[in-house]
Amino acid sequence: MAKKVFQSMDGNQAAAHVAYAFTEVAGIYPITPSSPMAEYTDLWASQGKKNLFGMPVKVIEMQSEAGAAGTVHGSLQAGALTTTYTASQGLLLKLPNMYKIAGELLPGVIHVAARSIAVQALSIFGDHQDVMAARPTGFAILSSGSVQEVMDLGAVAHLSAIKSSIPFLHFFDGFRTSHEVNKVEVMDYADLDKLLDRDAVKRFRKNALNSSNPVTRGSAQNDDVYMQAREIQDKYYELVPDIAAKYLADISKITGRNYAPFVFYGDKDATDVVIAMGSVTEAIEETVDHLVAQGKKVGLLTVHLYRPFSTKYFFEQMPKTVKRITVLDRTKESGSVGEPLFLDIKGIYYGLDNTPEILGGRYGLSSKDTTPGQIVAVFDNMVNAKKDRFTIGINDDVNHTSLPYEEVDVQKETSTELLFFGLGSDGTVGASKNTIKIIGENTDLYGQAYSSYDSKKSGGVTRMHLRFGADPIRSTYLVSHPHFVSCSKDSYLTKYDMVGGLREGGSFLLNTVVPKEEVEAFLPNKVKKQLAEKNAKLYIINAVKLAEEAGLGVMINTIMQSAFFALNEQIMDYATATKLMKKYAKKAYGRKGEAIVEKNYKAIDAGKAGLVVVEVKPEWANLTPETVEIDMTRPHFVREIADKVNAIKGYDLPVSAFTGYEDGTMDNGGTHFEKRGVANYVPEWIVDNCIQCNQCAFACPHAVIRPFLLTEEEMANAPEGLQTKKATGKGLQGLQYKIQISTLDCTGCGVCVEVCPSKTKSLVMSPIGDEIEKGEIQNAEYLFDHVTYKDNLVGKNNA
Amino acid sequence: MAKKVFQSMDGNQAAAHVAYAFTEVAGIYPITPSSPMAEYTDLWASQGKKNLFGMPVKVIEMQSEAGAAGTVHGSLQAGALTTTYTASQGLLLKLPNMYKIAGELLPGVIHVAARSIAVQALSIFGDHQDVMAARPTGFAILSSGSVQEVMDLGAVAHLSAIKSSIPFLHFFDGFRTSHEVNKVEVMDYADLDKLLDRDAVKRFRKNALNSSNPVTRGSAQNDDVYMQAREIQDKYYELVPDIAAKYLADISKITGRNYAPFVFYGDKDATDVVIAMGSVTEAIEETVDHLVAQGKKVGLLTVHLYRPFSTKYFFEQMPKTVKRITVLDRTKESGSVGEPLFLDIKGIYYGLDNTPEILGGRYGLSSKDTTPGQIVAVFDNMVNAKKDRFTIGINDDVNHTSLPYEEVDVQKETSTELLFFGLGSDGTVGASKNTIKIIGENTDLYGQAYSSYDSKKSGGVTRMHLRFGADPIRSTYLVSHPHFVSCSKDSYLTKYDMVGGLREGGSFLLNTVVPKEEVEAFLPNKVKKQLAEKNAKLYIINAVKLAEEAGLGVMINTIMQSAFFALNEQIMDYATATKLMKKYAKKAYGRKGEAIVEKNYKAIDAGKAGLVVVEVKPEWANLTPETVEIDMTRPHFVREIADKVNAIKGYDLPVSAFTGYEDGTMDNGGTHFEKRGVANYVPEWIVDNCIQCNQCAFACPHAVIRPFLLTEEEMANAPEGLQTKKATGKGLQGLQYKIQISTLDCTGCGVCVEVCPSKTKSLVMSPIGDEIEKGEIQNAEYLFDHVTYKDNLVGKNNA
Repeated sequence: MAKKVFQSMDGNQAAAHVAYAFTEVAGIYPITPSSPMAEYTDLWASQGKKNLFGMPVKVIEMQSEAGAAGTVHGSLQAGALTTTYTASQGLLLKLPNMYKIAGELLPGVIHVAARSIAVQALSIFGDHQDVMAARPTGFAILSSGSVQEVMDLGAVAHLSAIKSSIPFLHFFDGFRTSHEVNKVEVMDYADLDKLLDRDAVKRFRKNALNSSNPVTRGSAQNDDVYMQAREIQDKYYELVPDIAAKYLADISKITGRNYAPFVFYGDKDATDVVIAMGSVTEAIEETVDHLVAQGKKVGLLTVHLYRPFSTKYFFEQMPKTVKRITVLDRTKESGSVGEPLFLDIKGIYYGLDNTPEILGGRYGLSSKDTTPGQIVAVFDNMVNAKKDRFTIGINDDVNHTSLPYEEVDVQKETSTELLFFGLGSDGTVGASKNTIKIIGENTDLYGQAYSSYDSKKSGGVTRMHLRFGADPIRSTYLVSHPHFVSCSKDSYLTKYDMVGGLREGGSFLLNTVVPKEEVEAFLPNKVKKQLAEKNAKLYIINAVKLAEEAGLGVMINTIMQSAFFALNEQIMDYATATKLMKKYAKKAYGRKGEAIVEKNYKAIDAGKAGLVVVEVKPEWANLTPETVEIDMTRPHFVREIADKVNAIKGYDLPVSAFTGYEDGTMDNGGTHFEKRGVANYVPEWIVDNCIQCNQCAFACPHAVIRPFLLTEEEMANAPEGLQTKKATGKGLQGLQYKIQISTLDCTGCGVCVEVCPSKTKSLVMSPIGDEIEKGEIQNAEYLFDHVTYKDNLVGKNNA
Repeated sequence: MAKKVFQSMDGNQAAAHVAYAFTEVAGIYPITPSSPMAEYTDLWASQGKKNLFGMPVKVIEMQSEAGAAGTVHGSLQAGALTTTYTASQGLLLKLPNMYKIAGELLPGVIHVAARSIAVQALSIFGDHQDVMAARPTGFAILSSGSVQEVMDLGAVAHLSAIKSSIPFLHFFDGFRTSHEVNKVEVMDYADLDKLLDRDAVKRFRKNALNSSNPVTRGSAQNDDVYMQAREIQDKYYELVPDIAAKYLADISKITGRNYAPFVFYGDKDATDVVIAMGSVTEAIEETVDHLVAQGKKVGLLTVHLYRPFSTKYFFEQMPKTVKRITVLDRTKESGSVGEPLFLDIKGIYYGLDNTPEILGGRYGLSSKDTTPGQIVAVFDNMVNAKKDRFTIGINDDVNHTSLPYEEVDVQKETSTELLFFGLGSDGTVGASKNTIKIIGENTDLYGQAYSSYDSKKSGGVTRMHLRFGADPIRSTYLVSHPHFVSCSKDSYLTKYDMVGGLREGGSFLLNTVVPKEEVEAFLPNKVKKQLAEKNAKLYIINAVKLAEEAGLGVMINTIMQSAFFALNEQIMDYATATKLMKKYAKKAYGRKGEAIVEKNYKAIDAGKAGLVVVEVKPEWANLTPETVEIDMTRPHFVREIADKVNAIKGYDLPVSAFTGYEDGTMDNGGTHFEKRGVANYVPEWIVDNCIQCNQCAFACPHAVIRPFLLTEEEMANAPEGLQTKKATGKGLQGLQYKIQISTLDCTGCGVCVEVCPSKTKSLVMSPIGDEIEKGEIQNAEYLFDHVTYKDNLVGKNNA
């Protein structure tokens, strides 16, 4: 057997890796969270990487997902093994072609990073609504629950499609699996090659529609023969489970991991079994271990081959001892009598002897976090409340469907959980993934990284959830009880609850410009109290200064990474970590020149050196946390929804919070109340240099910069010190021109300065301070309330 | 109560009638069989017909069904009650918008003439595959089973959508209901007006998205709140069944017909119950009557409100005595453990006490005829074989799913069944519908007309299935045991089995140019034997000659209609019929002038006069039918599939006939073997007049006319008498030009003659005869096999 090769990658990369081997043509159109699969395929094809047929993949990008599906259909008919990648509405647009691809018995494969469908609102996050919308199409459906499973089972989709002539949809959870970086064993193309049925490939090619094989396909049938011609295909579907089962067994042999159409996990005499598919099965396995250790007779039945659904393989795996079943569906079909998998399971048990009780529940819509505590509640519910069609992960105080639960910690003692708070675009995500790679490729440890972005992207808050441990990591949920918390931005201290979940004795690393002796005064009572109560360790670092000194500008990620390694020697001793960080920095920046590499070396060395220990005083435990007064003058939507979402407390909003907003309506004007104040530097208007072109306003991605024109009367009433200049341009006689900068909304990205065409720049980045803020706010209020000519200027003078 | 108004119309017209009342904007894009709904709406709007809000409907035609769905979505958001009409792939293209419309709680309505989805082949015929693909969208789904139900329940969809804020999909079976003409009671807009909740309309309008009500909709939500915001909508869905039930009760009161979310029909202590929806429920009612009369404890539970599925209303209707249930689904989901309705019913019974046995079956894919005999087999199966996941209506000799059955006649003695064989475009369909209207509007009889076209349209064979009777007609299947058969084309005698199903003592009317004294010799033995064995009456009429004499050209429909009334005085005495036919002819042709009306009067009078009785000799019963030798030299596909389809025997093809064609492949070249010989007149080439423009070949809709060029060598080898002329045009020196006409493929449409630009026409229509046929066939064989320049000429010289 070949040496096992491990690599850290996300689910999309794993899917692209196996799909590439079997793909001759890829018809693509991007949609989050599936896009990276197509991007990897495109990249590798451009590098000349060869598939199992000795050729690079031909990648065809279309103008919509419907077009990509048409490409797949046509390309398959022309005899090329064809693949696509999609999600959500993208999959919906493929449905008409999917019926045709299945009906014409073509071995296409679609890899789906399963995502919510836009209903009351769009969401890019993951659930199975899209996959379930495709279940009537006649595609076989295969499910993977982790990055490793994507790698292992992705090939089964292609191999089985080729052998059975039935197309496959292979799916895994959007974001949770598609974007989770995990250390996985990489499939060797040589192994896949051995499994490929080349005779079936030949038969497929021989059947291609071309001028030397002229037949008619895609024709019409009438009421006389359509039904017979449709029913004859059953014989193809009947063969699929055995074909897939054989390949799953082959893959099991190669990998040493246990796969089948259905896989049971837990006590072999289990009485209480949860049935599920997708990433939640990993968290359920953890929870089952936890409960079995307590002597509970529980288990999990994971569904891999969802369509065709094989009762034979199902009953082979389900213990005969089962008395109670709960089926978890990651979808919602309003108006139905039950979600799809739930109805399937009832369907196959109906009418048998000694049937188990079967309950159904919904979970995880749009990546709603599903934790071991919730899963314990599911097992409890089977025995106690027996609530049916319940929900978990939310507090449904309207329809009263939700199960109450308490968090349960099922982490192994050998594992470490870490949580990083970063500012979007500050390098936190890249650094975290780099860290995972360093550890994954240089130790026996397994690592996992999952990012929570907010939709504000650049300038928004980013949380990286990291785990390391001696065993493969199955915790498919957010880190809420970290051993270590790192924060790149000290203004977050008052906005977010960063150390509330920190474990007893854990560490908190804060990047701040505040010197050690002022930290005690600077920290909110609430944070100090939390740290003291948890016997936590507190470290500060002035990464902004260190990065500047190293010549890295605002990129503080290398400093923070080095500090992380210095504080987490249980993962790797710091000397080794330093060597490795330098090796990876050279790899990453080598082609940018020796100078850049040297700067990073300097930053790496500075990381540990810059760490400052701050004593956590036991008496802090007695402090009274600041009370936060809710400002009742803020509009209801802002106060009850937007403010909470912005404080990362949207997760806890009960269902009733959306009363009055049931149709997805959002009140306008919310940003007016959201002053983020995340920028360290903001643009300052240099009046004399300004040529009034409005380019800065046009380019500002956050609508922070706005030009105004004031009449003489408005000037007379203006607050003292309002800087303006005589407006130039046709029809602007007698008006004064003013650039207004809403500094509290600014993220400090500096685009305005970059685009300013004035030779003598009319904007400069200045450190934010009382003076700038105060003047600006006063100006802004006056300008917006009293000045006539404003936003319509944007784009007007851009000659 | 207002006087009941009856009218004969098809399901599309009925749907359009009620939809119009509640529609302000219609976003449309045509797709068979739903197009007439949009066409009626467009027509009425152009005539200024007013909806319940006093305005004509604004009709917006888009460039695809996806665009129409976008129009519906946007128009609803703008506060206009909006409707669309669609089917099949058209509905699939609407799915992404449907999720949004439901999620934004918008009261849109889609009327669906339910149609198959293109799988191994496209089909325009009816089943529920499209509707079932829409079941996860969150739309409420309402089903109608007859033209009258479409009229009655269509309004419930609009009324309930407006009151509940949940959009409705109202469906009825494509073709079977959408195109069946039936005599129905017409809904009065005044009655509908009383049911409309105008407060709900006001609320809807007030919530419109416009500049005086600026809010944000269609935004994005993340993993923190999407699930809560999705779950809160449950409370809206919970109200729908009660709202719909109330309107169904209101409609019941108005119409005197019994409607509810679920309606039971049959023995109140039924032990064996079929559950179904759509047009099949009418045929099941007939069959249940038949079985109950035999003392069987059987029944039918009709599903009207399929989504939201209300167990409360279901159990209210289902007899407590039920022991066995069979669920019939008009769809197929390959790879599933059961079709959707089947799984729903198992789902709601699972875990209850004393649960019935539940079996599931598929029927009627793509309008596959579902007959009382098949339904009796379903009831038998519940008690005896207990086969699960069976099929009916086909012989599945591959997967062995089908139930064996024998035809059962459940027609009432007062009803008459009639079957008309016509040639596409000869007026048979129009005349039959006209007949239904005459009878429906002038007698107390109910009437039904259903057309079976073949896909060849003009020149293809058309069958009209008509029924008349004292009670509303529920026979939602083809006429197979007619009291009366009419045939417009005597060449059909050898092609189709026309009188095989004729009832004992029935009548057969044949249009033929064969004189009375030659008829005995002309008729095939098979037909004579059938007529004698059935003690049938035989009538002939030379309608071709009579139509010519009346000045109506080839339009024989009026003659045949008159002859029909003359031979079916059990429906209406002939004198009255004559008066009415003339009244309707005046109405139809009045604006074309008195002359045309007079011609039709003459034809009406000629109908009865032209009838000739031919004695059916009892000794014909002893004749030996002609044996049909199957020509084994014909290609397999032609012999085993195409020939049978062309002979209207495709209905009986077993599933195994499609072995080798499982992926929808059809062999090419089949038309080469199909010589229809349906034209009485065919074009003849007048060599001297021809200017070699090829326009005739270009315009021929049946590819019957093809130009050839022959070399000197080819000319030398040509059969004697091959007419050609010197080819003109660049590069054609030394070649001879020839127009070849495949007379046996010609339908005699005469388009070639019309387009011929030669002043002295180079084509004339001549009666077909041995001479033309023989020479042409000889020519064609030589030309196609030996001549180099052929089809590529088409379009070449069209300067």
